[in-house]
Amino acid sequence: MIDTRTRGVFVISATPFAEDGSLDLESAARLTEFYLEKGASGLTVLGMMGEAAKLTPEESLAFLDTVLRVVAGRVPVVVGVSAPGIVALGALAKQAMERGAAGVMVAPTPNLRTDQQIEAYYALVCETLGPDVPVVLQDFPLALGVQFSVDCLVRIFAAHPQIVMLKHEDWPGLAKLGRLRALEAEGRAPHVSILVGNGGLFLPQEMARGADGAMTGYAYPEMLVQVVEGMTAGNRDAVEDVFDAHLPLIRLETQPGLGLAFRKQVLFRRGAIASPFVRRPGPKLDAEDMAELDRTLGRLDRRLAELAE
Amino acid sequence: MIDTRTRGVFVISATPFAEDGSLDLESAARLTEFYLEKGASGLTVLGMMGEAAKLTPEESLAFLDTVLRVVAGRVPVVVGVSAPGIVALGALAKQAMERGAAGVMVAPTPNLRTDQQIEAYYALVCETLGPDVPVVLQDFPLALGVQFSVDCLVRIFAAHPQIVMLKHEDWPGLAKLGRLRALEAEGRAPHVSILVGNGGLFLPQEMARGADGAMTGYAYPEMLVQVVEGMTAGNRDAVEDVFDAHLPLIRLETQPGLGLAFRKQVLFRRGAIASPFVRRPGPKLDAEDMAELDRTLGRLDRRLAELAE
Amino acid sequence: MIDTRTRGVFVISATPFAEDGSLDLESAARLTEFYLEKGASGLTVLGMMGEAAKLTPEESLAFLDTVLRVVAGRVPVVVGVSAPGIVALGALAKQAMERGAAGVMVAPTPNLRTDQQIEAYYALVCETLGPDVPVVLQDFPLALGVQFSVDCLVRIFAAHPQIVMLKHEDWPGLAKLGRLRALEAEGRAPHVSILVGNGGLFLPQEMARGADGAMTGYAYPEMLVQVVEGMTAGNRDAVEDVFDAHLPLIRLETQPGLGLAFRKQVLFRRGAIASPFVRRPGPKLDAEDMAELDRTLGRLDRRLAELAE
Amino acid sequence: MIDTRTRGVFVISATPFAEDGSLDLESAARLTEFYLEKGASGLTVLGMMGEAAKLTPEESLAFLDTVLRVVAGRVPVVVGVSAPGIVALGALAKQAMERGAAGVMVAPTPNLRTDQQIEAYYALVCETLGPDVPVVLQDFPLALGVQFSVDCLVRIFAAHPQIVMLKHEDWPGLAKLGRLRALEAEGRAPHVSILVGNGGLFLPQEMARGADGAMTGYAYPEMLVQVVEGMTAGNRDAVEDVFDAHLPLIRLETQPGLGLAFRKQVLFRRGAIASPFVRRPGPKLDAEDMAELDRTLGRLDRRLAELAE
Repeated sequence: MIDTRTRGVFVISATPFAEDGSLDLESAARLTEFYLEKGASGLTVLGMMGEAAKLTPEESLAFLDTVLRVVAGRVPVVVGVSAPGIVALGALAKQAMERGAAGVMVAPTPNLRTDQQIEAYYALVCETLGPDVPVVLQDFPLALGVQFSVDCLVRIFAAHPQIVMLKHEDWPGLAKLGRLRALEAEGRAPHVSILVGNGGLFLPQEMARGADGAMTGYAYPEMLVQVVEGMTAGNRDAVEDVFDAHLPLIRLETQPGLGLAFRKQVLFRRGAIASPFVRRPGPKLDAEDMAELDRTLGRLDRRLAELAE
Repeated sequence: MIDTRTRGVFVISATPFAEDGSLDLESAARLTEFYLEKGASGLTVLGMMGEAAKLTPEESLAFLDTVLRVVAGRVPVVVGVSAPGIVALGALAKQAMERGAAGVMVAPTPNLRTDQQIEAYYALVCETLGPDVPVVLQDFPLALGVQFSVDCLVRIFAAHPQIVMLKHEDWPGLAKLGRLRALEAEGRAPHVSILVGNGGLFLPQEMARGADGAMTGYAYPEMLVQVVEGMTAGNRDAVEDVFDAHLPLIRLETQPGLGLAFRKQVLFRRGAIASPFVRRPGPKLDAEDMAELDRTLGRLDRRLAELAE
Repeated sequence: MIDTRTRGVFVISATPFAEDGSLDLESAARLTEFYLEKGASGLTVLGMMGEAAKLTPEESLAFLDTVLRVVAGRVPVVVGVSAPGIVALGALAKQAMERGAAGVMVAPTPNLRTDQQIEAYYALVCETLGPDVPVVLQDFPLALGVQFSVDCLVRIFAAHPQIVMLKHEDWPGLAKLGRLRALEAEGRAPHVSILVGNGGLFLPQEMARGADGAMTGYAYPEMLVQVVEGMTAGNRDAVEDVFDAHLPLIRLETQPGLGLAFRKQVLFRRGAIASPFVRRPGPKLDAEDMAELDRTLGRLDRRLAELAE
Repeated sequence: MIDTRTRGVFVISATPFAEDGSLDLESAARLTEFYLEKGASGLTVLGMMGEAAKLTPEESLAFLDTVLRVVAGRVPVVVGVSAPGIVALGALAKQAMERGAAGVMVAPTPNLRTDQQIEAYYALVCETLGPDVPVVLQDFPLALGVQFSVDCLVRIFAAHPQIVMLKHEDWPGLAKLGRLRALEAEGRAPHVSILVGNGGLFLPQEMARGADGAMTGYAYPEMLVQVVEGMTAGNRDAVEDVFDAHLPLIRLETQPGLGLAFRKQVLFRRGAIASPFVRRPGPKLDAEDMAELDRTLGRLDRRLAELAE
């Protein structure tokens, strides 16, 4: 089970498809092994980046079962269970926990606007799940259109101890992270684990402000691990040299929509999945995109080699 | 099967729940019979108003099976199959058609913006469904944030003859309806059936502009039937007297979100369902809402009695 | 000056243009006199419905000066001063108050999301205006995309006594109005004047829930006056008969965008302005719209005659 | 005058304010000189990043006059004239051109959705401006919510030859840029100048796809100049080494909202303006932001020194 002390890199797993669009469970197994080899402290499946919304209910469970079987308890697995209706959310969470999930991730429904509405929604979620299911709250305004103020987050964490983790991907979001940790230091907010998203775009800065790690799907998870461990060890300059070398690629992967096509293409080239196919409707790379990716990966390799000297 | 000549009133069915929030299939059967008794030419299930998004996959099929069993072929049943992913949409449509649906309704995914994106989406939908499945295109910008221009609709209808019906609920939308029919008269657009939504708020005006009927869930479907038949018969003054008498109640039912609570309360009072429960998160009527509904229904009865004299 | 005890009907003034699109100050004078004759307790100028955003700075002041000259102190005039920048807002408010405005109306900037952001914005507005300028807070989510929770409004009213009035046009909004008055009755919220907008679509119901009147631009302001006075006098049945007779026309005028073209056309037909021109980009009525308006006005006259018997 | 052959770096000018929030025209003059010294081929004023919306009408003209006086014809100056109403837009454009502007920039009004609406709007803009005013079309969906398809842009460019330039800041936007140039090569679209925005985040890649330069306000305009010239000269590897060194800072400056505070802080540190003040409501840097900026600038200097060796 995840809890408020959970740290490290939870990789948001891609969902592999074959060229004909069917779910590729063999690649799912290989990809899971790949993430673990690269040092993942945990996995997150059925999140937005994972194309969860494009799976049928049966596919979702088949994918989850495959991941859990390969992981075999080596690391915790968080399952995204966001759904428009609370009954479906509760049913999916129940299935996930029974299968061995370490917690569930819940994004707000997109219609929520005021603090009152947001707080009422998470109260309903927690009541539905029951108190024993650890929850990750996903704060992702760019994609969801829902804004959490710091006050609102603090009231939600205080009211629901089972919400043990914040997936932080507000943008810009550094000030929010800093304020949350400052309120905690003053005893005015409970401690929660904060893992950051947004492809890791600000990961060193976010670690410096008090993040506990990352929860994102960047195709070089070993770099995320290196940054999280290095920053924890106080080794910032060397860490940032490596991180900055990756920034041109991170920039490609954090493009809304299109970024996923780059990410799967990199995972494909690294041998982690059998096809870079993105389920439709979805983005596709054109020849120029591929040439740019070649170039970006080539430059990344050269720069890392330079740094390694 | 529905086709481009389909006319009349397709009632968007509410989804009945028991007070404990569970799906109430007995009420579903009773409600289906109620709609048929009131003169529905067809039914539409698993639409947005029907709380489709709040059902689990199993509940959706159970509800659909109940409705189809009660209808027993007496009228066509359209099934809402909108889904974020095309595979899930295709799978649900296949299940629906195999069970006996007369067509499927597809709303655009909310991220679509340009004409190109919208047209590409419906091309993908039609390719996925195959050419034999009749499709209703749902044009509902207030809820979905997607705007169809007249040109865009015409190009979609011309490209995909299987899209036989437009569920028209743009607001304001009368000019769009008029332009579509004008282009058709000039031979510049194919004919499709146009049924109007928005709770019927402009039904007489829309019939005058060339609509073929209504597809909406107003709790007095017999009034919709009376308006559609009366307008077709050219009996406009008497029709509008009745329609205007209902307008104060239509106004309550067309309020975003809250309107559904009024609608289910009226269906409950009319004996069509065992409970007015709306699944959470969802609106609830307070004591003052109930007093206003009492008053509105009382005034409606009095006015209809006056007109009947 | 307006204050928390202000009641009645504040008509949101249209802005008249000539057929060539130029500002028509002669019609502005005539329209102002028209509103006063029909019983307006106050006027609101340079609001959204008044096409304020389409005026140059010079035109805004010329229009305001004309209205103030004609009113000549007979009723209070509220001036809309919403602007993206606080300096421009402050400058316009200063000009308005110096010319004799009774207060200013301020809508939130559209980017505000959380309660914290909204409260900070109104704090900045009040600091900028100084404590002596009475403020109307405009709550209009459909047009602005900003949602005020009841808690947020109460905190704003408590912090800034100069915010003396709420222009209430949330939709649905009856429950919010009721909760505000309930909190006030329990001593948990300060009293403010609440005038309702939305074309008066729910005016009798809103008066019953504790509104103090209307602030809207419906082209028959005498009906609004009749409803506000009649509801205050406890004469609800007769009031609602008249109100319901107007509902088909109110429905035309409350259509987003297009409604303004209907409203100006009615004002034109009633002799209040020399042209129904709406500045571009803006809506235009087509021949069918005009025929429907003819019909709606004819039916309104007949129904009012029936009621007067 | 700008035309379809215009190339280079047009710097979007910041608007300098004193610590008390007043417009600082002395800094405006100094900043203008700074941009020219760093190699700007042109300037753009009164754009969104320039806090145009926060100026009073008098301030806008005073600022424009200062910039034009200092520039004294050395480079073309484009003036942002976007406004909710077409009359105000036309009036501001007339004032700008009479004062010596080289063209005007027009963003779509945020309510536009369909291709038809967007095309109608630019037709109205061009009709209002008259054919002799060169226009820059601003395509910035993240900030404005309006999506231009490639087809829509091509139709607009074909219909209005006075629209000589596209300010391209769609995100992701590389494929759009490539498609526009491909259609042009096939003779299916007219040539326009394309300058890219988004803080230059993809500048080398965009130059490779056929951009003619940049129109953005990054606080090191000399780097933008170096990239545009270097890419034109075919010197890609060296160019990208420098560009990638700046990427960590570009990342800070392209954060929505907050980025402007970083940008003004850098301009302040570089001696270009007397105060980094951002007019309220606006973002402020906290102590941690400042420390991160220190660190980022230090690392930038070190990396540039390394590359210069």
